[in-house]
Amino acid sequence: MKKIALAIHGGAGTIRRSQMTGDLEHEYRAGLENALKAGWNILEKGGTSLDAVEAAVVSLEDHPLFNAGRGSVFTHEGANEMDAAIMDGKTLEAGAVSFVKNIKNPIKLARLVMANSEHVMLAGEGAADFARQMHAEFADDEYFFTEHRYRQLQDAIEQGRIQLDHAASTDGTGPLSDGAVPRRGDTETEPPASTGGFLEEAGTTKQHEITENPRSAIRNPHSKGTVGAVACDANGDLAAATSTGGMTNKKFGRVGDTPIIGAGTYAYNATCAVSCTGHGEYFMRGVTAYDLAARMKYKNLPLEEAAAEAILRLTEIGGEGGLIAVDAMGNIALPFNSEGMYRGFVTWNDAGRVEIYKS
Amino acid sequence: MKKIALAIHGGAGTIRRSQMTGDLEHEYRAGLENALKAGWNILEKGGTSLDAVEAAVVSLEDHPLFNAGRGSVFTHEGANEMDAAIMDGKTLEAGAVSFVKNIKNPIKLARLVMANSEHVMLAGEGAADFARQMHAEFADDEYFFTEHRYRQLQDAIEQGRIQLDHAASTDGTGPLSDGAVPRRGDTETEPPASTGGFLEEAGTTKQHEITENPRSAIRNPHSKGTVGAVACDANGDLAAATSTGGMTNKKFGRVGDTPIIGAGTYAYNATCAVSCTGHGEYFMRGVTAYDLAARMKYKNLPLEEAAAEAILRLTEIGGEGGLIAVDAMGNIALPFNSEGMYRGFVTWNDAGRVEIYKS
Repeated sequence: MKKIALAIHGGAGTIRRSQMTGDLEHEYRAGLENALKAGWNILEKGGTSLDAVEAAVVSLEDHPLFNAGRGSVFTHEGANEMDAAIMDGKTLEAGAVSFVKNIKNPIKLARLVMANSEHVMLAGEGAADFARQMHAEFADDEYFFTEHRYRQLQDAIEQGRIQLDHAASTDGTGPLSDGAVPRRGDTETEPPASTGGFLEEAGTTKQHEITENPRSAIRNPHSKGTVGAVACDANGDLAAATSTGGMTNKKFGRVGDTPIIGAGTYAYNATCAVSCTGHGEYFMRGVTAYDLAARMKYKNLPLEEAAAEAILRLTEIGGEGGLIAVDAMGNIALPFNSEGMYRGFVTWNDAGRVEIYKS
Repeated sequence: MKKIALAIHGGAGTIRRSQMTGDLEHEYRAGLENALKAGWNILEKGGTSLDAVEAAVVSLEDHPLFNAGRGSVFTHEGANEMDAAIMDGKTLEAGAVSFVKNIKNPIKLARLVMANSEHVMLAGEGAADFARQMHAEFADDEYFFTEHRYRQLQDAIEQGRIQLDHAASTDGTGPLSDGAVPRRGDTETEPPASTGGFLEEAGTTKQHEITENPRSAIRNPHSKGTVGAVACDANGDLAAATSTGGMTNKKFGRVGDTPIIGAGTYAYNATCAVSCTGHGEYFMRGVTAYDLAARMKYKNLPLEEAAAEAILRLTEIGGEGGLIAVDAMGNIALPFNSEGMYRGFVTWNDAGRVEIYKS
């Protein structure tokens, strides 16, 4: 079998079992599993890594629980401003968008930038003009509005601070824990893991899918929200994709690491494909995605070791978060230094699984 | 003497002697010399590398001939949209702005972002809000309007293409060569170089300074316009700063490499400070500034060798341009693969000079 591989993330941060309900955890797991399936179906049929990472990220963008696309957080002005980037490891071509509003799937727009513009990164109104020219799909405000996100904004404004999605609230319980029953007795016991790989458990997944009106039922325990995917296809071609809805209550048109090639997203066949999540400023200052690739290229480290070093370096400079990475041999790495990271993978020799907490 | 060093650039691209007049070349040289002096005065007095690179870039931003600040090119809509970034090699702190309009000195705003915000990069209206809160200096449209830039835009619109500042025009003579007398007989003879370093030639420099009304006299032979500075101060602390007015006739809110930490700008005491100029998309895809640093860090290459390799790599992936770099021992490198790069340097053991063409 060809050494295909896929890894995804749905954000890293202070994700505590004590703040997670069983229902919410099921929703997260189902969201991750569906995204893995969307990407894996493509890889398995011989599709490209670019198509696979795009499909996986679209699936996460469409899910109201993850901070990207539909589930994007609100800025200080009450708007959703989204960033996304995609990179082709075979050609080093890349596309990124920043500050896009009302774009249903920012990752699709990033790919259009890569394929149909002579630029790498488009932002704001200009990116919207490009989206119209490309007939990209727009969605109205109502599509993006989710009650838990809006409450998150109100809470952040009251507290007068910017809130990374998934940052623990100051009281340690999280401003949105109302309505959710904390599993305080549940300390470090991992919920039963699927034994044969989630791909065989269609029924299980289905019953956890988001219901028609998830807004009142879902409470987000504040992850540093970004979603991403990396893949290696049957040709050994790599690709990376990352998408985010930004930070709750952010002001001043902040751009994070997600759309920055080398910081939050990078892919090159000779080294690896990387997608990062966490406190973006540190990934920017550390040029973390490319730092991982550079450790492979110039120190001849294998993927896992280079990825561990990159996260160690991130820790040294004060950054919190994680990343997912894949190389052209179908190896994967999913290191993080935060309490948790929503993540999952499937490879040619591993039926795959999703995880949330530290193992 | 402490091993202080300063290098600057004013853009790289197709800069041909045959398209350059003597007067214009003098203006360029004077602009570079003044910027070097502005930065060197600070370093010489024991000032910080951050202050030095900021001062040098401010000098270039204030000069109507370079594509940054006052001399920024016009976008498709006839506006000036500017980007800038600054990075402190001692702390890895960084500040960047993108899409700012009517900011007199974008590099100063980038430094305010670094010093007074919790973010690395601010863009567009949000960056303008931040600028107002910080009492940054604004300037009206008239300040930025220069006739040769406006003509450049009109020409680019007529030709229906985006024009990197300094890209050779399709007919090989340049759309703005009217009014300038091409030195067609002047092939590869370098104009007389200053022998004792320009710092001793205050008189010579003065007579070439920009006159009160330079607009009708100056024609820009189409550089890929960016300005930048890198410095090492008496403490061995490094800093890098880059600023640009973008691309003539650019649409869609294109963001180039200038404000991207790792692509166009990077600084870290343990390796080097780098500022890039050229076809930005390739510097973004190559993560060129950090690539140079990574070659020093992980391959243990000296600055000059790492810089040469980084430009070789840029060439391999199809990119054109150059960079300036300095390390904590006061070594400098100014490699480029284009026909020319406006550049200059002074170091603790070299009185310095400015150059335009390949040597």
